[in-house]
Amino acid sequence: MSEVSPLAPSLMPDMPEILGVRIASCVAGLRYSGRADLMLAECDSGTSLAGTFTRSACASAPVEWCRERLGQGLARALLVNSGNANAFTGRRGELSCAAIAEETAKCVGCRIDEVMLASTGVIGEALDPVPVQKAVIALSRDLTPTSWPQAACAIMTTDTFAKYGTRSCVIDGCKVRINAIAKGSGMIAPDMATMLAFVFTDAHIAPDILQHLLAGAVDASFNAVTVDGETSTSDTVLAFATGKAGHDRITQRGDRRLGSFRKALFELLKEMAHLVVRDGEGASKFVTIHVNGAKSKKSARRIAHSIANSPLVKTAIAGEDPNWGRVVMAVGKAGEPALRDKLAIWFGQTRVAVNGEVDPNYRESDVASYMKNSEIEISVDLGLGRGQDTVWTCDLTDRYIAINTDYRS
Amino acid sequence: MSEVSPLAPSLMPDMPEILGVRIASCVAGLRYSGRADLMLAECDSGTSLAGTFTRSACASAPVEWCRERLGQGLARALLVNSGNANAFTGRRGELSCAAIAEETAKCVGCRIDEVMLASTGVIGEALDPVPVQKAVIALSRDLTPTSWPQAACAIMTTDTFAKYGTRSCVIDGCKVRINAIAKGSGMIAPDMATMLAFVFTDAHIAPDILQHLLAGAVDASFNAVTVDGETSTSDTVLAFATGKAGHDRITQRGDRRLGSFRKALFELLKEMAHLVVRDGEGASKFVTIHVNGAKSKKSARRIAHSIANSPLVKTAIAGEDPNWGRVVMAVGKAGEPALRDKLAIWFGQTRVAVNGEVDPNYRESDVASYMKNSEIEISVDLGLGRGQDTVWTCDLTDRYIAINTDYRS
Repeated sequence: MSEVSPLAPSLMPDMPEILGVRIASCVAGLRYSGRADLMLAECDSGTSLAGTFTRSACASAPVEWCRERLGQGLARALLVNSGNANAFTGRRGELSCAAIAEETAKCVGCRIDEVMLASTGVIGEALDPVPVQKAVIALSRDLTPTSWPQAACAIMTTDTFAKYGTRSCVIDGCKVRINAIAKGSGMIAPDMATMLAFVFTDAHIAPDILQHLLAGAVDASFNAVTVDGETSTSDTVLAFATGKAGHDRITQRGDRRLGSFRKALFELLKEMAHLVVRDGEGASKFVTIHVNGAKSKKSARRIAHSIANSPLVKTAIAGEDPNWGRVVMAVGKAGEPALRDKLAIWFGQTRVAVNGEVDPNYRESDVASYMKNSEIEISVDLGLGRGQDTVWTCDLTDRYIAINTDYRS
Repeated sequence: MSEVSPLAPSLMPDMPEILGVRIASCVAGLRYSGRADLMLAECDSGTSLAGTFTRSACASAPVEWCRERLGQGLARALLVNSGNANAFTGRRGELSCAAIAEETAKCVGCRIDEVMLASTGVIGEALDPVPVQKAVIALSRDLTPTSWPQAACAIMTTDTFAKYGTRSCVIDGCKVRINAIAKGSGMIAPDMATMLAFVFTDAHIAPDILQHLLAGAVDASFNAVTVDGETSTSDTVLAFATGKAGHDRITQRGDRRLGSFRKALFELLKEMAHLVVRDGEGASKFVTIHVNGAKSKKSARRIAHSIANSPLVKTAIAGEDPNWGRVVMAVGKAGEPALRDKLAIWFGQTRVAVNGEVDPNYRESDVASYMKNSEIEISVDLGLGRGQDTVWTCDLTDRYIAINTDYRS
């Protein structure tokens, strides 16, 4: 599993500083040996907080910890560990969160409720707070404004490469920076999928506005990717806005100055979401599914997910087989409005099916070479309305099975 | 793919005659070479008809053919071919159905609307009616009351064994027989899943009562199994009741004489549904998922399906790994009421998790040997209500990927 995904980017960006944010990471020895597994971020006082979380009914203790404190809209610290998800750990999991947050608050000099937590790794095992508490003391002395790649490494589990990125925009003539780190590899061995992403910006934005912007960007990015249709108990996206960029505080949703920030935030989260798909377990191809002509955007999303999660579509792509019949099947089973005889399907630029049957001009040889690419686009037009959406996924290979079948053997 | 599934039954039943039904099968040469691919069943006049079909919005031409004629409640013939699904074939597919039904009606001596059709195999290719029409003439001269196993063979695609069974019950002192043949192998290479089942009985039951009984039995059998969560464009279950058993016609839903018939029909369909799972592509284990304590039966069904369709749960079972954390994940993502701290999970008889965390008495070694069995039961108690349901599935192995990735190479 140490081999880097063939879909990993060949270049990673230089990460700028974010005014008001300092970070550090270290080897706390929670599960892995010899690699970083704990990261701390400290934000200046007055930092706005926003977050979105897994929809799982069995969310982890740190997810519940953050969710309960999101309403205050303020945070000073983020502590993330890998190796143990602190999920399905009952009352002990909650106590562990409280003990860790208390020590972190002491080190950073803030209230305990201003500490956000996230954990990823094995589930069902109690997270011993003691080694974390010890490591936090050391971490709080090592904080720097620059160690973003190291932080991205510290939150990895079976990820094969570190995921981070940056964008900038201008508000009132002030340059505003947004940095993000993320982790995720589909459903993550050794236990379960977790997608984590943390966004830091020096923009000066009220918490409720930040929450609104984050929710919109997450919906069109992380909620539009899938590796295997699973939902972790620990999925977490948090955004921290320090307000140090120099512009006046934005407090209205309709504020025109938000346009460039909104776009930059979305592009950054989309890039992070794509990196997660590119590190999907066993992935050999990056797949884009476009759905047009659906009854509504929601319907388009559901149909796109039905295609993207179909094991038959995904194995066909792995086999470089333009098997459009399986796309028809996946559209049909989505439970959304569709009319067989209005359906059209493209692989890349080639229309393969139209009017409820194979395109009379289609020859399989046209698409056979296209299917050998490492990036594949499938487009579907329902011919019913104006609803459209795009989701991203990867193929399903025997390596996914090997990773998830054999990991304990 | 010629190797028989390791989960295939070691003994198959002797099939009795059904009064009023005669069957035949032959090699029509539609796609496969050297094996039967067409079967005809002829029923006496007055035979009641019932049916349930795929929920796909892109149903095949034969599914639409049958659905449009189900309301008449009567049928005289069933013609089923393998090799070509006649799905996503547009107007030509409809014309093909009409031409085939017309020839069949002529041979059997009935109205065209009394002919039911089903097709399974490759999709998107027009089904040429001519070779089918020719073969039907020959078939109609070969009809016998006994050739059930041969008929079951003729409807196979990538099934590795023929699926058929029989039950009997007593109504008004008359022995009533029910025979069924079925096919299905998960999502079937070379193109897509199709689950077909045909039930023949000499019971004397009005069509609307038969429909009611069939729908109930299908819901608790075929709708409670899954191999990979896919839905074919061609799934079809049809029931034919000739009324020749000798008892008076049953015309009321509440008729007490239906009790033993209902039970026999359900047991037979459950057996057929289990045979489909046992022939699931790449399956090495037969898995039963029990969900208890849900808010409702519907909620229990959804949670059970979420577990049964989870690639992570299925790969864990393939790896003989009692990975209950993945079961927690699958419960959590089902979108149904669940409370982490009321959840309990069993592998076989061993409780592994309770009260939102690992069972304090659980040792993994207890379950490790259980996981080596070829039949695995997972039970979940939500602790919320009285809703319960059971679904059946198989594990997910590298052979599923190999079958569905490599078939054209």
